[in-house]
Amino acid sequence: MKRLPALSGIADEDQRRLRFLVTAHQLTGVERHNRLLDGARQENSAEHSWHVGICAMVLAPVVAAHVDLGRVLELLTVHDLVEIEVGDVPVYDEPARAQMVEVERAAAAQMFASVPGGEALLERWREFEAASSDEGRFARAVDRLQPMLLHWAGGGVVWREKRIPRSRLEGFVGVIADFWPPLGSLAEAIVRDAARRGDLIDDLPGRDVADVRCNRH
Amino acid sequence: MKRLPALSGIADEDQRRLRFLVTAHQLTGVERHNRLLDGARQENSAEHSWHVGICAMVLAPVVAAHVDLGRVLELLTVHDLVEIEVGDVPVYDEPARAQMVEVERAAAAQMFASVPGGEALLERWREFEAASSDEGRFARAVDRLQPMLLHWAGGGVVWREKRIPRSRLEGFVGVIADFWPPLGSLAEAIVRDAARRGDLIDDLPGRDVADVRCNRH
Repeated sequence: MKRLPALSGIADEDQRRLRFLVTAHQLTGVERHNRLLDGARQENSAEHSWHVGICAMVLAPVVAAHVDLGRVLELLTVHDLVEIEVGDVPVYDEPARAQMVEVERAAAAQMFASVPGGEALLERWREFEAASSDEGRFARAVDRLQPMLLHWAGGGVVWREKRIPRSRLEGFVGVIADFWPPLGSLAEAIVRDAARRGDLIDDLPGRDVADVRCNRH
Repeated sequence: MKRLPALSGIADEDQRRLRFLVTAHQLTGVERHNRLLDGARQENSAEHSWHVGICAMVLAPVVAAHVDLGRVLELLTVHDLVEIEVGDVPVYDEPARAQMVEVERAAAAQMFASVPGGEALLERWREFEAASSDEGRFARAVDRLQPMLLHWAGGGVVWREKRIPRSRLEGFVGVIADFWPPLGSLAEAIVRDAARRGDLIDDLPGRDVADVRCNRH
């Protein structure tokens, strides 16, 4: 984006806003691990960031009626922007995710400092990451539920290819339930159905889904 | 999406919510007329719907501080969903757009009726379409400004290919300025620069941009 030309007749601050918005559009080029429903290609983080928003709008009235939905949408709109700098770290790769925390924090601080008013955007990014409010916790749960829903609706193709064990997905159910218990029930139903149709390697015979809970991060 | 299987252990209303969300994801398959910044492919309406959101978040504090930003994000999240049924009608094609109004209204009513709580989503879609609030007018202006910004940042490739006359873009500037005057100034600067570098067919020699205003629809 360094080649973006200056625009005559608008203030320097507006130039920086436009440059940030053009840079932000590169989130369309960050590939995620789940595919589009027709399997044609990977979903990208811009598409994901929109879809978690509509998921929040549909699910909030029934499971999170007291949260500020507008704030949730703000958090979800900015939550993946830092991936333009650091890429998408798959949820399956816990060690990589732990390592990335500091890198992402630094990248977020730098990215949002580049735009006038960026402190507010950085604050929202941090609220999402820290899950430091009901809005943050609900947004985090939706962000984890959405790929599970897509994997399942797409026939579990990626789960089968990667030979994902049931225990791992049940761990994710626990994460979602910790963030937002009613969404944990939805996630649990999805994993149960995926196991039933053979999408997952069944490594937990007889174990009850409700017993599996893990940390939020 | 008819093949989406039932999930045991969740309520019928939740099944309908998940089915709606999976259907909504098909917005990723609706191509728009502008390209990604690297020119690799067309932008799709899911990516656009996210990017107008971040545009709104960055621009609102400086030009629309009194609007309810969360509400703006709600409007923008749902504003293009109906395209899953009717496709994207290019902003250049005014007769086609006029014809589509009733088709889109019917499609929206049907689509949002399929999901519990869909009345609220339909209301937001209508608020955007009718520009019946400050939030709706600001959202409509951002929705028109965003593709102009992308075309410009991408070097005006599509404008050149389609031999777009300057007068047409100045008409769009007028639309944006009618919805939200301060964003009209930004759009005007973009069009002026596009004309300067030869992206547009110059069919308005000596005419002042500020004179060109047209209707909102």
